[in-house]
Amino acid sequence: MIEASLAPLTEGYSPSLPTQNDYAPWLALRRVKGLGCVGFKKLSAQFADPRKIFAASRSALEQVEDLRADAIDGIVDFHEWAEVNDEISRVRDAGISLLCYSDASYPARLRTIADPPPLLYFKGELNGVDDKAVAIVGSRSASDYGRRVARDLARGLAAAGFTVVSGMARGIDGMAHETALNSGGRTIAVLGSGVERAYPPEHDKLYQRISANGAVISELPIGTRPVAFNFPARNRLISGLSLGVVVVEATEKSGSLITASLAVEQGREVFAVPGEVGSSRSRGAHRLIRQGAKLVENVDDILEEIAPQLLTRGGTANAAPLALPQNASAEARKVFALLEAGSLQIDEVIERSGLAAPRVLQILLELELQGYVRQMAGKRYAAERNN
Amino acid sequence: MIEASLAPLTEGYSPSLPTQNDYAPWLALRRVKGLGCVGFKKLSAQFADPRKIFAASRSALEQVEDLRADAIDGIVDFHEWAEVNDEISRVRDAGISLLCYSDASYPARLRTIADPPPLLYFKGELNGVDDKAVAIVGSRSASDYGRRVARDLARGLAAAGFTVVSGMARGIDGMAHETALNSGGRTIAVLGSGVERAYPPEHDKLYQRISANGAVISELPIGTRPVAFNFPARNRLISGLSLGVVVVEATEKSGSLITASLAVEQGREVFAVPGEVGSSRSRGAHRLIRQGAKLVENVDDILEEIAPQLLTRGGTANAAPLALPQNASAEARKVFALLEAGSLQIDEVIERSGLAAPRVLQILLELELQGYVRQMAGKRYAAERNN
Repeated sequence: MIEASLAPLTEGYSPSLPTQNDYAPWLALRRVKGLGCVGFKKLSAQFADPRKIFAASRSALEQVEDLRADAIDGIVDFHEWAEVNDEISRVRDAGISLLCYSDASYPARLRTIADPPPLLYFKGELNGVDDKAVAIVGSRSASDYGRRVARDLARGLAAAGFTVVSGMARGIDGMAHETALNSGGRTIAVLGSGVERAYPPEHDKLYQRISANGAVISELPIGTRPVAFNFPARNRLISGLSLGVVVVEATEKSGSLITASLAVEQGREVFAVPGEVGSSRSRGAHRLIRQGAKLVENVDDILEEIAPQLLTRGGTANAAPLALPQNASAEARKVFALLEAGSLQIDEVIERSGLAAPRVLQILLELELQGYVRQMAGKRYAAERNN
Repeated sequence: MIEASLAPLTEGYSPSLPTQNDYAPWLALRRVKGLGCVGFKKLSAQFADPRKIFAASRSALEQVEDLRADAIDGIVDFHEWAEVNDEISRVRDAGISLLCYSDASYPARLRTIADPPPLLYFKGELNGVDDKAVAIVGSRSASDYGRRVARDLARGLAAAGFTVVSGMARGIDGMAHETALNSGGRTIAVLGSGVERAYPPEHDKLYQRISANGAVISELPIGTRPVAFNFPARNRLISGLSLGVVVVEATEKSGSLITASLAVEQGREVFAVPGEVGSSRSRGAHRLIRQGAKLVENVDDILEEIAPQLLTRGGTANAAPLALPQNASAEARKVFALLEAGSLQIDEVIERSGLAAPRVLQILLELELQGYVRQMAGKRYAAERNN
């Protein structure tokens, strides 16, 4: 989470923790036509440093699996660095932060989805606590009943230390964010528009409060208008950030059902709150329950279902990672930062760190001997935490 | 379905369709201490004619598996024939009919449960149409919402030709019966007390209407008071008579949940109607849904689930059985009557008909050649129906 800056692109990049300038190539890649999140993920698997992508030869790019021809052209011929710098300027002026896929502090859970956004724009703060997040979504035209249930669930989740994720829409979403804040909890709003302003406008005060006690996030460049087309893609981030998604009220054509089906694809839990039959607002939730969503009456129904997931992470999801000693090398810090975000296989550590394989092996061995890193089955490594 | 009579027991019983006197040994067996429904079922498997049970030697009875010693004593020493005749008299005077387990017109579906009542007391009429039955049960202190849903479902089931089964209690049960009748459908009330009077008393008019357009049933002798102890056993008949049980509103301690779990044991479908969370009246239904009950919003949700069961019976559940020709023998009629109630394996036909095996084989072959009976896989026979 580093503020973007106007600093010019520097040559002679060396692997280290991200600097202010490191977002320029990510912003540039975002402008390349024909390059989606999945192509992005493949590129960054091949080139640990995105800056190297723009230095790569056409033939090197052609070796990246399934990369579209227009994307290759766009990268090779890229000439919009001025616009990129201008965007960084505007981002900075708006008080917006950037986070890229390769950052250690990129939300660990979001990293696991099939199409994680390469770049996140956000206002506020994202931190490891947000790994323990549950989404509450539902109808914009919620009933009093729906609002009441959303409030009770958000309050319960906040009290249990969960970050409440939602879409900042009218109705259920707004109620979920607001109650989480009123209960002293953290909340994350994922927008389907640029993150620089509140949408819908009447949620401006809520937007300010969320930015101060959580984060407002978007993968869309600033200035992007809230057109309906953006919302389904936005919904995958709501579920992607969360252990589970609770649908409170939803008609049969509700976007909340899209969020729920994305959640299923992503291996997240889906919860639904029943209501009276005959209420069209409950029909979507009832359909989800028939399809296997867990019926939720109160927050305990959610916690019960999610508890095993928290346990499979060794019960350490809440624990802060250990701090490396002052004399740790920049390279060791880089490797450790990667593992803080979630366990990785050794190949992934090598790939993402941009370091030579023998060096990575040496660092991991040292960190393991010092008790900072733990080796698991299948050549997988995890950061040790305070617990 | 034959009116009980005061006619004295006749000796020299010969296998034929049940006569008025045939219920005396069943009523007698009901008075034997230590003999429950399961013991009853075993006895009647051994002795096709219950009259032969009282003629059997102690050593013959001792060969019946798991028959309790006090039951054997009670049979051998049975001396309450006067009381039995008196009961038949009272049953007749009250306009009540009797039906025993071995009667061809005993409800086919009820026959399949683990502990079918050996004897049913009923007012009204039971017929093959009632094979297509669904139970609607729920809270006595139903909400307006619950009553409305019960009414909509009962109306839909009646319109689809289903007999609506329930317990004639206040609230949901009463609404289910009443709506079925108002919709021109059939309905069966199963009481946890003697069938000679309405319980609860304010349902007297409903009781009269049900008797005229369906049946009020009980396995309990006339004069049995409606004590709470009787209701769980009663509930197994509600589910046993039905293809499925719909729970409309139920608190967590509701008897409807007992009916639902008996339904599961009996292989019946369980349906539950959701409601608002926070309403204690919906908590039981929600629990059932979590446990796998089908969530029901409207009658189509029920029909959809039940359709396959009707289809596995060759789609003929509604069709009237063929009528045997005038010159058919009494033995052939007896065999055919057994099969009308549902398909049977050849051993069951022999056992229940009380006829010698070679004679049964001969009859079945003749009936099959004449097109009245169909042989299925596994030496199983079914009556052909008009369709």
